[in-house]
Amino acid sequence: MAKTVHNRPIYVLNGPNLNLLGTREPEKYGHTTLADLDQICREAGKAQGFDVVCHQSNLEGELVSWIQEAKTRDAAGIILNAGGYTTTSVAILDALLSVRLPTIEVHITNIHAREEFRHNSLISRAATGVICGLGTASYTLAITAIAGLAGAAKH
Amino acid sequence: MAKTVHNRPIYVLNGPNLNLLGTREPEKYGHTTLADLDQICREAGKAQGFDVVCHQSNLEGELVSWIQEAKTRDAAGIILNAGGYTTTSVAILDALLSVRLPTIEVHITNIHAREEFRHNSLISRAATGVICGLGTASYTLAITAIAGLAGAAKH
Amino acid sequence: MAKTVHNRPIYVLNGPNLNLLGTREPEKYGHTTLADLDQICREAGKAQGFDVVCHQSNLEGELVSWIQEAKTRDAAGIILNAGGYTTTSVAILDALLSVRLPTIEVHITNIHAREEFRHNSLISRAATGVICGLGTASYTLAITAIAGLAGAAKH
Amino acid sequence: MAKTVHNRPIYVLNGPNLNLLGTREPEKYGHTTLADLDQICREAGKAQGFDVVCHQSNLEGELVSWIQEAKTRDAAGIILNAGGYTTTSVAILDALLSVRLPTIEVHITNIHAREEFRHNSLISRAATGVICGLGTASYTLAITAIAGLAGAAKH
Amino acid sequence: MAKTVHNRPIYVLNGPNLNLLGTREPEKYGHTTLADLDQICREAGKAQGFDVVCHQSNLEGELVSWIQEAKTRDAAGIILNAGGYTTTSVAILDALLSVRLPTIEVHITNIHAREEFRHNSLISRAATGVICGLGTASYTLAITAIAGLAGAAKH
Amino acid sequence: MAKTVHNRPIYVLNGPNLNLLGTREPEKYGHTTLADLDQICREAGKAQGFDVVCHQSNLEGELVSWIQEAKTRDAAGIILNAGGYTTTSVAILDALLSVRLPTIEVHITNIHAREEFRHNSLISRAATGVICGLGTASYTLAITAIAGLAGAAKH
Amino acid sequence: MAKTVHNRPIYVLNGPNLNLLGTREPEKYGHTTLADLDQICREAGKAQGFDVVCHQSNLEGELVSWIQEAKTRDAAGIILNAGGYTTTSVAILDALLSVRLPTIEVHITNIHAREEFRHNSLISRAATGVICGLGTASYTLAITAIAGLAGAAKH
Amino acid sequence: MAKTVHNRPIYVLNGPNLNLLGTREPEKYGHTTLADLDQICREAGKAQGFDVVCHQSNLEGELVSWIQEAKTRDAAGIILNAGGYTTTSVAILDALLSVRLPTIEVHITNIHAREEFRHNSLISRAATGVICGLGTASYTLAITAIAGLAGAAKH
Amino acid sequence: MAKTVHNRPIYVLNGPNLNLLGTREPEKYGHTTLADLDQICREAGKAQGFDVVCHQSNLEGELVSWIQEAKTRDAAGIILNAGGYTTTSVAILDALLSVRLPTIEVHITNIHAREEFRHNSLISRAATGVICGLGTASYTLAITAIAGLAGAAKH
Amino acid sequence: MAKTVHNRPIYVLNGPNLNLLGTREPEKYGHTTLADLDQICREAGKAQGFDVVCHQSNLEGELVSWIQEAKTRDAAGIILNAGGYTTTSVAILDALLSVRLPTIEVHITNIHAREEFRHNSLISRAATGVICGLGTASYTLAITAIAGLAGAAKH
Amino acid sequence: MAKTVHNRPIYVLNGPNLNLLGTREPEKYGHTTLADLDQICREAGKAQGFDVVCHQSNLEGELVSWIQEAKTRDAAGIILNAGGYTTTSVAILDALLSVRLPTIEVHITNIHAREEFRHNSLISRAATGVICGLGTASYTLAITAIAGLAGAAKH
Amino acid sequence: MAKTVHNRPIYVLNGPNLNLLGTREPEKYGHTTLADLDQICREAGKAQGFDVVCHQSNLEGELVSWIQEAKTRDAAGIILNAGGYTTTSVAILDALLSVRLPTIEVHITNIHAREEFRHNSLISRAATGVICGLGTASYTLAITAIAGLAGAAKH
Repeated sequence: MAKTVHNRPIYVLNGPNLNLLGTREPEKYGHTTLADLDQICREAGKAQGFDVVCHQSNLEGELVSWIQEAKTRDAAGIILNAGGYTTTSVAILDALLSVRLPTIEVHITNIHAREEFRHNSLISRAATGVICGLGTASYTLAITAIAGLAGAAKH
Repeated sequence: MAKTVHNRPIYVLNGPNLNLLGTREPEKYGHTTLADLDQICREAGKAQGFDVVCHQSNLEGELVSWIQEAKTRDAAGIILNAGGYTTTSVAILDALLSVRLPTIEVHITNIHAREEFRHNSLISRAATGVICGLGTASYTLAITAIAGLAGAAKH
Repeated sequence: MAKTVHNRPIYVLNGPNLNLLGTREPEKYGHTTLADLDQICREAGKAQGFDVVCHQSNLEGELVSWIQEAKTRDAAGIILNAGGYTTTSVAILDALLSVRLPTIEVHITNIHAREEFRHNSLISRAATGVICGLGTASYTLAITAIAGLAGAAKH
Repeated sequence: MAKTVHNRPIYVLNGPNLNLLGTREPEKYGHTTLADLDQICREAGKAQGFDVVCHQSNLEGELVSWIQEAKTRDAAGIILNAGGYTTTSVAILDALLSVRLPTIEVHITNIHAREEFRHNSLISRAATGVICGLGTASYTLAITAIAGLAGAAKH
Repeated sequence: MAKTVHNRPIYVLNGPNLNLLGTREPEKYGHTTLADLDQICREAGKAQGFDVVCHQSNLEGELVSWIQEAKTRDAAGIILNAGGYTTTSVAILDALLSVRLPTIEVHITNIHAREEFRHNSLISRAATGVICGLGTASYTLAITAIAGLAGAAKH
Repeated sequence: MAKTVHNRPIYVLNGPNLNLLGTREPEKYGHTTLADLDQICREAGKAQGFDVVCHQSNLEGELVSWIQEAKTRDAAGIILNAGGYTTTSVAILDALLSVRLPTIEVHITNIHAREEFRHNSLISRAATGVICGLGTASYTLAITAIAGLAGAAKH
Repeated sequence: MAKTVHNRPIYVLNGPNLNLLGTREPEKYGHTTLADLDQICREAGKAQGFDVVCHQSNLEGELVSWIQEAKTRDAAGIILNAGGYTTTSVAILDALLSVRLPTIEVHITNIHAREEFRHNSLISRAATGVICGLGTASYTLAITAIAGLAGAAKH
Repeated sequence: MAKTVHNRPIYVLNGPNLNLLGTREPEKYGHTTLADLDQICREAGKAQGFDVVCHQSNLEGELVSWIQEAKTRDAAGIILNAGGYTTTSVAILDALLSVRLPTIEVHITNIHAREEFRHNSLISRAATGVICGLGTASYTLAITAIAGLAGAAKH
Repeated sequence: MAKTVHNRPIYVLNGPNLNLLGTREPEKYGHTTLADLDQICREAGKAQGFDVVCHQSNLEGELVSWIQEAKTRDAAGIILNAGGYTTTSVAILDALLSVRLPTIEVHITNIHAREEFRHNSLISRAATGVICGLGTASYTLAITAIAGLAGAAKH
Repeated sequence: MAKTVHNRPIYVLNGPNLNLLGTREPEKYGHTTLADLDQICREAGKAQGFDVVCHQSNLEGELVSWIQEAKTRDAAGIILNAGGYTTTSVAILDALLSVRLPTIEVHITNIHAREEFRHNSLISRAATGVICGLGTASYTLAITAIAGLAGAAKH
Repeated sequence: MAKTVHNRPIYVLNGPNLNLLGTREPEKYGHTTLADLDQICREAGKAQGFDVVCHQSNLEGELVSWIQEAKTRDAAGIILNAGGYTTTSVAILDALLSVRLPTIEVHITNIHAREEFRHNSLISRAATGVICGLGTASYTLAITAIAGLAGAAKH
Repeated sequence: MAKTVHNRPIYVLNGPNLNLLGTREPEKYGHTTLADLDQICREAGKAQGFDVVCHQSNLEGELVSWIQEAKTRDAAGIILNAGGYTTTSVAILDALLSVRLPTIEVHITNIHAREEFRHNSLISRAATGVICGLGTASYTLAITAIAGLAGAAKH
């Protein structure tokens, strides 16, 4: 299937501690660094004809702001790994509810197979879908999914 | 009743996503923008003889800092819509407990008639009063209330 | 703003023990008696061009009946301090759901800063808004709010 | 089957807000008024050879008293729609436990398919049976059931 | 009222252990056997002009399949006593949600007056109504109710 | 110890269903009727030099009113068996908090050895003491206790 | 009423920290020492014609043993203030269930008006009655109650 | 990347009511039938060089058996939509724990954005990853993921 | 003690995934296969003079049916390892309550020392006794226990 | 199988109120006294070639000490009926965790079929296995089990 | 800083199983024995000019008694490792509340990073401070802290 | 013990509102300012031969970043008072889990003796130890502890 270049970007947003990827508990999170991951996402996006905008922040409010920015820039969708804010952030949930963009919540590990306090994602309530437990493939599959949703919406 | 100009400001603090007012779910939050709201508050304050200082931030800690600043500037009171931090922020609660200023917690919608997880405001514990569900009138009534409390305290 | 006399009354309903106002724990509830409060409400209503009908009862069912009566008399709104029935009365909740009038739930104290069992108002689910913690000003601000809602609805 | 006239009445007791039937949320509760319902019940009773005594009150204690009265008058059974008292009234529960009459708890709507706080009927613990969700047919089926129980008990 | 023969069947589905009726704890469930009950239901259906299809299974999935079959055969309604699956079966709940047929949940005993773990019927959420505690009359009243609903829908 | 006649009455208030005493579940509540109990209390009061005022009501709000009346009449204390309102009535709790009279909560049975939902008395929070499980002696011991408290307070 | 000397003793058992009576938080527990209390109990018992056996221990198991001993010595009843073991001791509960003697659980303070974790007495489940909140009078009233129960049982 | 034909199949298992796909609540589940879905999965598998084995059952135990069969046939992985058994089936959880195959739990809808009782997947604890909310793409992305895991494991 | 051959069989029923014994997590469940276990049980039964009937199924309803069959065949008792249905199956619980046979619930591992969700066996409520954590000895000890109960019942 | 005398003792420890065996609620606990039980255990031990050391105490700490002593004396295992301490004693749990000896928790009755507060054994977490509900056979089967474990460990 | 000998002792109290220190799970609790620990504490006390009194008991009540004794001997403070009684002992909590001495709760391990049931220390409510997770240094730092508090109190 | 200058710093991180130290509720937090505290920490560090790096922020994410920075600078340990983020911040918890440095959680007050919602520290799960309730001594003792841990690790 031939790809055309879309002018709507895909936002890939990573939350707290994901800047430590590759060094943090590599037996759990793997050896890929955040720079590697960003590169992988950009390439996966390009393969689907999308620009990918990557941001990481340890600040809850900065993630809120980027979600709002995605709306302003008419993004095709948001891929969000909110890290430690996943289960507690009403602010991020509200941001997603406000922008109403296709959103895939992703996690590197399967959060449902970890400690009890990680099971109840609050932000899932505003997500289109969730992909977790598949390492960096969680991100690339999410890009494929966003591309599919954008395609479906276009027609 | 003739108004005199007080030299103690009233702080109006808005939390995460309130910068989207007017565009975010307008059927729920109305069409007034944050700039409109700030203007409405300033005028309501002026009618009571008070300067009104308006701030909005998506950052929990920035709200904490402004609450502290209100104390430093000897504010007559704080009107706080903490948005998504309302139910979770011990940090904002502690800030309010520290400054011990007259504080009215406000919400545009009636949070008690919405999803279960929005019902238990943590910061209410440190508020003088709560006004919610009345749209932008929640703010203007709160300014009247602060003015009343300031008047009562003066005598 | 010139006021015109509306022919729709505002109902101010007080629940159990509010007949003790002024004598009950005055350090918490103040020295204003129920008669004073009724007078204050009537004057606040008149200033907005509304008749105010005041009732107090210790009986849950009598409050239900007055809520129904407010509907029959085409009230502009209800201001309800259900006292001890606030957290438990499905009957009052259902009455409010049935009449669908603009309703402001009021409390003299900030119930969210008191004992745990007072935090979860059941009747809030059917209220337009909530004002609490501001003493008798909770009532007068509510009258202003009802007046505003009535004005908004009229246009 | 030929009917004989029983001298034991059936009590049909309706709780708070059921006097609003026909006007309250008709899309949920239908257009039948309380007067209609009483008439329907009386006819259904007559068809089974029973007098039907109908009462409605918004007062919890008045319902308690009528339950006690049913005992005094040797009623064949009680059909009780306690409305908003269904989930909270230990007093009504105790009244039913005291009189030990055949009792059918009825509801016009299926309370188990509504809000969580309506699911746990307290008074079910003292009921012979429960019929809900069938509109006014909940009442007429209950009358058939009481008649059946009375017949069974007679033999 | 003269009955006409409908060509839409009524499904009466009994779940696990109801094949033991008449022998299982007869002081609680009575002496009627499942064969008796089926016969009673068929006659009650015939009196209303409906064929009644009776099934019993100890298998959760078989109940799911019969609910689906009822849809295929354009049943007038389903009368379901899911026995031990009542409180736990999301699969049966989903089946009912899928077929959207008039459904009466029935129980021989009043499950709300028994052990705590029997109180919360999950499948009630998809039922039109619930009848319980009336022995085999729970079934015959349900047939009357389905007939009434079918009649109401026809007009 | 010689008794003098006090001019402060003792209030003995009985809540819902206690008018059925002697007939309601006598194996649990005994054969003494409410009239008997009132007489026993009056005599026990007289033996201590106190008039005893006895009231019973099925209405929550009437109990609230009598508690308020006890204050007006400067009662030496209140003996309260709130029956089914014991665990749910914030209104009665608030009444007791308002009048701040010596109050003994009494029960004929030991509510802590009965069903779970009877264990947590809400009104205990405002009671001086609790006596339960001792039949009518719960009341006479309470009168002795009030007399003792009144004596202690006098000196 | 003339008293005769019974040959069945009454056991008064005090649990952990009650040996500190008179010195421990006297504003809450009063100035009476344990020795004083024992003396008061012995005299109250003598007035009713009973010997009173007093024991105090900080050891849960020693309280269990004395409860068993009360059975062996054919006690007329047990008055038990289990102190800190009240809410947690299944062992004491089982001991009371084993001996099946008339037992009054007593407390100097009203435990239901104190911290949440003191509200649920486990041992209440095996007590005949409970008296609390009346200081040392809790004990003397309990002795009167045991005497009454013993008298009632004798006839 | 050129594909070679693997001799390890991928199992796609669908639970209760998924045989209704295309007809059941199409606004929620879409118009694709189960036959369509199976065909889509087989083609997606073929594109990755894998045979795909598709099964659907309403029986919990049959799903358990197919999971065991997948082990026997040395499957490359399992894609499991357990439908209504997702939140309750310890049996399926144990089956997955026993076979220790790469497993992707899939759902057509985002279960975390639906009713509370659907949020806590029990079987997630034994899954490698979860993909939900993406319609039939949940399945095709899962096939890509299994293919990736199989490739990773081979090297 | 000389054994005589009883004509009442002992039923040994194994639930889901127990057909994987010997291959499933052998470090937890050991290396004995289900066939081995059946043989061990048959020999242990023979040593006590009982025939042993062994069944395994992954289907909840099939276990229900065998429990019913045990009654029909007048079994001396049931030894039941319900596997994953232990904590959730009201259907199996009801089956046991219906047949009222001596029943020993067994588990190979100590379920109380494993994950929280395995702790609360629902079917324990209908079991005579429980033996767990002793590997295959859990079964042979249970056979000894059933034999003892059968002997005790005979005399 | 010929028995040899082991020089490792088996500890049988009984907790609070088990000294009342034979007299305490015999319909529940049977007529065997503690002395009888000790004798039965010693003989059962001798039959397996083990000395059995029996202790009973009402003191939690004494049970802790005997568990420690069992370690010092190199016991083959511990059989522990902790009575009322079963659900609450972290101290006994820690003692078992410290000594790491084969331990069988036993109960005369099936605690899982009794009151809710008896269901969650805390000490099960440190037990090898649990046997309950089988009267004194719970103990003798446990001795067989310990003997089996000791034999298994020897080889 | 030159030390002077204080005549107020410091009490170091260790609860159940701490007599096993050095042998119990040394990978978690280290190799220091209780005798070593006592010696370390005595030396640390001497360095600060305090005598240190060390006690260990497996008995809850004995710890209660030593806490009371500390008061009698006018101790400068108590260092308490209540072991398994930490989360359950109201008796020890009450003892601490009674004596009102500076008290440091200590633990060798970080109880908040262990099993859930160890997290909620009940006795923390009466402690001045808590030190945990630092091995034997938890004790020596506590002695420094008590010395500091005693010094602060002296001036 | 002679100190040598280590080249690994100790990080002292203070969270929201700790910049108000000395002015915020001084009766609870004392009169020491944050500047004073930093100075005290630096001197305590110097006494142990360590440089101390002090930071305070009201922003959750800034604390996350400094924890990461501590790792980069090879800190000997972290002393963290996360203030209001203590009970809610999964982000800070994850940061600590990522850097795996010796960490002492400190609090000026004893959080376990304050409001319920402050009891459950989430970040304790990743801390080496906890010191609370000792005012500024909580910090200096923590520095001693880190120094000890660093020394222990060196050998």
